[in-house]
Amino acid sequence: MAIQTPTTPMHHPNLVDGTRRHILDLDDFSPEEIELVMATTDAMGEVLGREIKKVPTLRGKVIVTLFYEASTRTRVSFEEAGKLLSADVINVSSSGSSVEKGESLLNTVRTLQATGADLIVVRHPHSGAPYFMARNLERTSVINGGDGWHAHPSQALLDLYTIRQHRGSISGAKVVIVGDILHSRVARSNLWGLTAAGAHVVLCAPPTLLPQEFLDGSYREDPDSSGLASVEVTFNVEEAIQDADVVMPLRLQLERQQAGLLPTLREYSKMYQVDERRLKLARPGALVLHPGPMNEGIEISPQVAHGAQSLIEEQVHNGVAVRMALLYLLVANKEGPPSTAQDTPSGELPRRIRFL
Amino acid sequence: MAIQTPTTPMHHPNLVDGTRRHILDLDDFSPEEIELVMATTDAMGEVLGREIKKVPTLRGKVIVTLFYEASTRTRVSFEEAGKLLSADVINVSSSGSSVEKGESLLNTVRTLQATGADLIVVRHPHSGAPYFMARNLERTSVINGGDGWHAHPSQALLDLYTIRQHRGSISGAKVVIVGDILHSRVARSNLWGLTAAGAHVVLCAPPTLLPQEFLDGSYREDPDSSGLASVEVTFNVEEAIQDADVVMPLRLQLERQQAGLLPTLREYSKMYQVDERRLKLARPGALVLHPGPMNEGIEISPQVAHGAQSLIEEQVHNGVAVRMALLYLLVANKEGPPSTAQDTPSGELPRRIRFL
Amino acid sequence: MAIQTPTTPMHHPNLVDGTRRHILDLDDFSPEEIELVMATTDAMGEVLGREIKKVPTLRGKVIVTLFYEASTRTRVSFEEAGKLLSADVINVSSSGSSVEKGESLLNTVRTLQATGADLIVVRHPHSGAPYFMARNLERTSVINGGDGWHAHPSQALLDLYTIRQHRGSISGAKVVIVGDILHSRVARSNLWGLTAAGAHVVLCAPPTLLPQEFLDGSYREDPDSSGLASVEVTFNVEEAIQDADVVMPLRLQLERQQAGLLPTLREYSKMYQVDERRLKLARPGALVLHPGPMNEGIEISPQVAHGAQSLIEEQVHNGVAVRMALLYLLVANKEGPPSTAQDTPSGELPRRIRFL
Repeated sequence: MAIQTPTTPMHHPNLVDGTRRHILDLDDFSPEEIELVMATTDAMGEVLGREIKKVPTLRGKVIVTLFYEASTRTRVSFEEAGKLLSADVINVSSSGSSVEKGESLLNTVRTLQATGADLIVVRHPHSGAPYFMARNLERTSVINGGDGWHAHPSQALLDLYTIRQHRGSISGAKVVIVGDILHSRVARSNLWGLTAAGAHVVLCAPPTLLPQEFLDGSYREDPDSSGLASVEVTFNVEEAIQDADVVMPLRLQLERQQAGLLPTLREYSKMYQVDERRLKLARPGALVLHPGPMNEGIEISPQVAHGAQSLIEEQVHNGVAVRMALLYLLVANKEGPPSTAQDTPSGELPRRIRFL
Repeated sequence: MAIQTPTTPMHHPNLVDGTRRHILDLDDFSPEEIELVMATTDAMGEVLGREIKKVPTLRGKVIVTLFYEASTRTRVSFEEAGKLLSADVINVSSSGSSVEKGESLLNTVRTLQATGADLIVVRHPHSGAPYFMARNLERTSVINGGDGWHAHPSQALLDLYTIRQHRGSISGAKVVIVGDILHSRVARSNLWGLTAAGAHVVLCAPPTLLPQEFLDGSYREDPDSSGLASVEVTFNVEEAIQDADVVMPLRLQLERQQAGLLPTLREYSKMYQVDERRLKLARPGALVLHPGPMNEGIEISPQVAHGAQSLIEEQVHNGVAVRMALLYLLVANKEGPPSTAQDTPSGELPRRIRFL
Repeated sequence: MAIQTPTTPMHHPNLVDGTRRHILDLDDFSPEEIELVMATTDAMGEVLGREIKKVPTLRGKVIVTLFYEASTRTRVSFEEAGKLLSADVINVSSSGSSVEKGESLLNTVRTLQATGADLIVVRHPHSGAPYFMARNLERTSVINGGDGWHAHPSQALLDLYTIRQHRGSISGAKVVIVGDILHSRVARSNLWGLTAAGAHVVLCAPPTLLPQEFLDGSYREDPDSSGLASVEVTFNVEEAIQDADVVMPLRLQLERQQAGLLPTLREYSKMYQVDERRLKLARPGALVLHPGPMNEGIEISPQVAHGAQSLIEEQVHNGVAVRMALLYLLVANKEGPPSTAQDTPSGELPRRIRFL
């Protein structure tokens, strides 16, 4: 039984008053913070739509992408976001770096801070690595770009933004996440973000691909997970998709089968693939999201992946705007005097983004 | 026998009226387009010669280099070209990217388009990959940076530019390409470009390193290759170089010997190496080009490689200017309204490059 | 016995009058040049402390980092330095480059020069590679970012700067370098730099990790090493650290044990680790430097590494400022007419850095 620990101190660091320095997951995001990110993303999306899609906002700021795992879309998205805000972006990947010389993560990130890096975007195979970094950095912000099976908050925020853009609001939407919940950092961060924004979330997976707390229902009693009390769980994909507003199949890591968690890929796709027939069970015009990269023909049929309801490319596009917003809110934020930041009424857009 | 298909539609997309979106090979380049690239390269070369060699032309544009094969010179050349035009350049290589996760080329390039990339420079081991990309992109331009054995148009254009710079004109020049024609994308693109610009091209190689259509002469009858009708083929390097204006030895991939296409490297260099003795057979002051990287002592002797007639470093220098021109013509081009572009008289420099 | 060769020509190229084109090691640096680097670093440090830490000094200049060995801190430091001066920085590493195709270093660097690169920062496993490059480049400057066991001048300069910042002057300081002197390019460059700046240097290592000339004392007679005549050597770390002003343990490459140069790592750290007990033998407030990355628990104890006397993170911070200074002095320098450069009185800051 979990011992209750206070998770929300009196003044929780947050984006609205400019006191948040890191974005590690969405479990400590208030609805006001999510709304601030959404509104700031609107402004950034406007920049992205311009003929000259570049603003001087982060000129003279240094952003490091520190990737200990392969990635195209997340790294490119952050790199582009930083550059379009005129930051200098420096890429460090585990191959070709001191990591190969066995340098500790602590010394690597303190070295990066010492060079003057304003923000590090980190992807790491170990859950919690970005938290360790954040605890050991005084002047450099951290954005979790994916840590192990744990969290991927910028991906969840771009999912939220894409839903909000199409439905006007996330609140009240039935969102179904189908697939390998157990190993999905995207699912975890979306759970926090979607419930904070008022969505009704249904998780659907075979029992071998669900975390224990969702199998035995203990998440409903865990005070640390009080935000997730309304989440539903089912093994049946037709039941899950019934009347859904949003359907989000997850990438199936093909090595899960070797680990004995699946009978065969064919069996999995027969039971859980989001295909046209199943998508018809959802509300008309239901939205299809996928965090990518897709295994077409496994967790999603090519017809759905490239069909009229698929927002997969819009997600990527919104991803750049969301990351511009996050970089802006964490890095430009640090400049203003704290007293001014306090004047900004909670939930309203601070004046500082007007000049974009 | 090849079935004749119309290769030139009524209005073929072209750089002159701003309707071309991709540069995949030179087989569909008109002499006017080649001349436009040459003239634009002149302007870019002037920028490269300045003390501050940078212009704001492509500010706020995003160029991605997507390299599925190792490269220094082509990637560096395009990266530098983009940056000197003030574009943001993002490098993606197959190692360290989603490619390792098995993402399809289709989804990779649609993802890059969705991030807002204005142009992708791609190098790919499979011939035709850039064509596949171009067919699946609506808003992002593609430049083929080398695909399998097929084409490398920017390399051929820099060869053309280098010849033109030294001779005033390409028309009428005898250009000899010596070596592994069979596996050379550089040779293929040069064939189209050189013949379109009016050069007389001689191919020289051992029979095992020549494409079948040049061995059996069928290229002369193939309506798809009508531009190549005047190309000559010989196995004898002395005969080939006789009175040549330009001599271009090709890199010999050392693995060709293992594949049984060559007796020994020593035999090859004895029979086909461009050395000082053979170069004397050419016209006085004949130009020596090489696409690099060189195997000195194999296809070219060190004396010729670094001799007074060698333009190998000028080729590299011109390569940056040519690529600046290509990026400019494809990306800056997209801004102007199409109706205005139509006003530009064919073969004349459009006003839009004046401001450089 | 070494044959005496003149190492200082009549007019030795130097930074003070703007005639130096390369920074390969500190053995040919005059005290005036070191002082110029220190003073220019002061100016760059001021830039780094600004809210917008970017100046247009090197706009339109191209800097290539050419790394044939893995590195984080040196590559990131130079990349950041270049970008904060508004240069375009292009990274080339041995993996994913033509190096894999077997291109010679000569052709690689001449290719980079031909693209218009103003400066190449090179790291190479072979001692002397940067000298070979410098001899073969007419228009491109070279900074040695570490060559084999030989030299790492920018690291030594940041060490000098860090000492000077804390003590006001380097002259007269007792600086102890402890550890694998034999394989350390950092130690070698520091030896030249520290002695030129007037420090008293003590080398401390087990005999198997000392170069022969320091074991047999022949460095005192070697006319090429006349600057090192006052250097002392000891095998005893307590004796070495006694009354030291600066203690610099070196990274122990763990593979040295396999090579039979060490009994065990445990034995080494027992005999030579800089720990709190030994540090107490130094002068009160003695400075601890380490070139990084550290093997904590081997050559340095964690308490010392992260203790109050450790300047390891300041070294990294100063490293960016020093590299900005070096890039500035080599690249911006080339613009002014040589005659003007001659007017600058030796040892005084030239006017050209005032505008920063």
